[in-house]
Amino acid sequence: MDQTHDPALRSFIPVAPDSDFPIQNLPFGIFRPRSGGEARVGTIVGHTVVDLAALERRGLFAGPELRGKQVFARPSLNRFMELGRPAWREARLRLVELLREEASSLRDDAGLRAEVLVPEDATQMCLPCEIGDYTDFYSSREHATNVGMMFRGAESALMPNWLHLPVAYHGRAGTVVVSGTDFHRPMGQSKADDAANPGFGPSRALDFELEVGFFVGPGSAMGEAVPVERAFDHIFGFVLVNDWSARDIQKWEYQPLGPFLGKNFCTSISPWVVTLEALEPFRCAGPVQDPAPLSYLRNAGERTFDIELEVRLRTPSMGAGDRISGSNFRSLYWDPSQQLAHHSVNGCRLRAGDLLASGTISGAAKDSRGSLLELCWKGTEPLRLSSGETRTYLQDGDELTLSGHAVRGPLRVGFGEVRGRVLPARG
Amino acid sequence: MDQTHDPALRSFIPVAPDSDFPIQNLPFGIFRPRSGGEARVGTIVGHTVVDLAALERRGLFAGPELRGKQVFARPSLNRFMELGRPAWREARLRLVELLREEASSLRDDAGLRAEVLVPEDATQMCLPCEIGDYTDFYSSREHATNVGMMFRGAESALMPNWLHLPVAYHGRAGTVVVSGTDFHRPMGQSKADDAANPGFGPSRALDFELEVGFFVGPGSAMGEAVPVERAFDHIFGFVLVNDWSARDIQKWEYQPLGPFLGKNFCTSISPWVVTLEALEPFRCAGPVQDPAPLSYLRNAGERTFDIELEVRLRTPSMGAGDRISGSNFRSLYWDPSQQLAHHSVNGCRLRAGDLLASGTISGAAKDSRGSLLELCWKGTEPLRLSSGETRTYLQDGDELTLSGHAVRGPLRVGFGEVRGRVLPARG
Repeated sequence: MDQTHDPALRSFIPVAPDSDFPIQNLPFGIFRPRSGGEARVGTIVGHTVVDLAALERRGLFAGPELRGKQVFARPSLNRFMELGRPAWREARLRLVELLREEASSLRDDAGLRAEVLVPEDATQMCLPCEIGDYTDFYSSREHATNVGMMFRGAESALMPNWLHLPVAYHGRAGTVVVSGTDFHRPMGQSKADDAANPGFGPSRALDFELEVGFFVGPGSAMGEAVPVERAFDHIFGFVLVNDWSARDIQKWEYQPLGPFLGKNFCTSISPWVVTLEALEPFRCAGPVQDPAPLSYLRNAGERTFDIELEVRLRTPSMGAGDRISGSNFRSLYWDPSQQLAHHSVNGCRLRAGDLLASGTISGAAKDSRGSLLELCWKGTEPLRLSSGETRTYLQDGDELTLSGHAVRGPLRVGFGEVRGRVLPARG
Repeated sequence: MDQTHDPALRSFIPVAPDSDFPIQNLPFGIFRPRSGGEARVGTIVGHTVVDLAALERRGLFAGPELRGKQVFARPSLNRFMELGRPAWREARLRLVELLREEASSLRDDAGLRAEVLVPEDATQMCLPCEIGDYTDFYSSREHATNVGMMFRGAESALMPNWLHLPVAYHGRAGTVVVSGTDFHRPMGQSKADDAANPGFGPSRALDFELEVGFFVGPGSAMGEAVPVERAFDHIFGFVLVNDWSARDIQKWEYQPLGPFLGKNFCTSISPWVVTLEALEPFRCAGPVQDPAPLSYLRNAGERTFDIELEVRLRTPSMGAGDRISGSNFRSLYWDPSQQLAHHSVNGCRLRAGDLLASGTISGAAKDSRGSLLELCWKGTEPLRLSSGETRTYLQDGDELTLSGHAVRGPLRVGFGEVRGRVLPARG
């Protein structure tokens, strides 16, 4: 930890005490001014977006790593992601220099402020980068156990491989969308247990999945394995992920090759990428791993993060939504360094902008389950909402919001939210 | 069919009778002159690469679809793919006009010829496009049955869903490579049936998979389903695909979410994309489908193609390789229009450059099986090679080549080949 994590550090930009975006956070994202203009890189402090392309144009990133690099006047973070930790750190330190309370160069220059600072509600957020490949892990022991119990029974709930490797599959990069993108309920094939043949129609078991994902920074070459102890050098930062799932489609299609149309119609992510640097104060140990993993997955120390997560559901008849679940990233059995090391151990190439998501994060308590499948135990235990309505799966018009933040003493760093709403099926 | 399929049509560029690339083919690809310069779009006639960027620069694509579009002086086909069939057809007709025997404008202009025509061996082929997402189907009934029999027994060889939908999963776009790219044997976890715990090391069951894939041309929006009868409008063209597989890694990891590290270390494709237009004379009906598919998958007429496929294996001690298998694309149970309609029926977005591969194409005969897993029946029936060697899986130094071509009377249109060699594991 260093001065950029000092809780006493303040920006001249107003920040509410419960804001996700104090000057200690400084996440990166892509925004477009609602007034027009190209998408570009920004950060956020309180409710103010800081235009990094404007700062770059003014020559205000003049350190050795960023000078002349032209990485911010672009519609994606990929080029900045490729540069690696020294460049990310230089940008962070420079932003603290420019934005802290005592610094006058931006604070007292009205013209520069007008060029660089944009009210959050005058911006539209875009996907943070071009996502080359999207991988979804299955790293919550509680989630894998719940799903296994529902579909295979308590005795063989966890597959034999589960405690030995972080199980994962490839998702669809082309349907990852940014928070606020609504989507149509998917159509598809499914088969009721008691039916002789499958039918076709709108999914009747539309679900969310509470996940956290990270973006690869510098990639790896084909044939190159990233050692677990160097994995963090390849991680740019984290976002919230909602991996929308159609359980009825998924159940019928997934054997033997895994989920396909039950998952690939939409995956939503939060727009601001919270860096490893910003999460440093919240590092912690994960669960004890027994049996000990094979050596290429073995690591030491605090390799995960204490991040509180929350799920809110708002039906069309509700004003505010209800909190329906809360979990914590630290409960994941397999940590990000293990996920990345496993992913590359066979020589699979990683590229800047690849997204690796955790899989559904469920805790031990019933109200910490990260999907409706688990919360309502396959439809058998409906949720009762404050509006008097019940839900087993999502109905048209329902809006789902995931949020997340980390707290340590007076320091709070958050992710904002990822929000999406179910539109009726097109059919 | 039209005059571009006329077997009597000839180019002034020499073409051997058994060439895959007569003037009736005109596939598209990306090449780089070995003498230097940027990668760009080309086609091939015989052993001569035609530089489409040069033709475009000279203003020789002046039709309504291509004029001013600047799609050929680029390192990928994506922009050309997006334009759709009228533009592809215009390019094809124009190329026939310029390259046919009777046409003098290029034939008799030595300066233009020097600018536009490049001997094949003075070029290096690149990936034809940026692949957004790579999907791998499982559409050969014979392959799915063989694999099911080996792992689940004859009675439940085909999963209950298999005859109702084209099963598929997402592969890794970032490790698709062009023919001629060698790769290292992957390292990974596997567990012997009689072992208590998994071990780690180089794969001992490295295999190939004989596949054919197609590239999406114009995409589809999120939420939009492409009807099966319009699917061909979204298909740009076909390539050969070798989906290298590490069976031991795959077997241990794949439940319940499907193949991951057992497949994503390398997938090889042939460099020339053979268009639907070129394959038109070879259209034919596929197998009878019983039970009848659901209506969104039901189509009529000749929706697949008669393409002969061949696999050759060359060990380091051999001069030429041995033919170890031969199959035909037409044997696939699910055809490309059904694959594409199924893929988008849930609203999954498709983008120009997405690759949809068939899955291993095995025929009914033993020597038409499309993988070593099947040819050697899980290692129990070794192949005897002409060199006296035997193989159950691939050894270091082995080179695998897939080729494919279609013949109808005097007309032959081919794919060239996709070739790759196994390098030792990096440990």
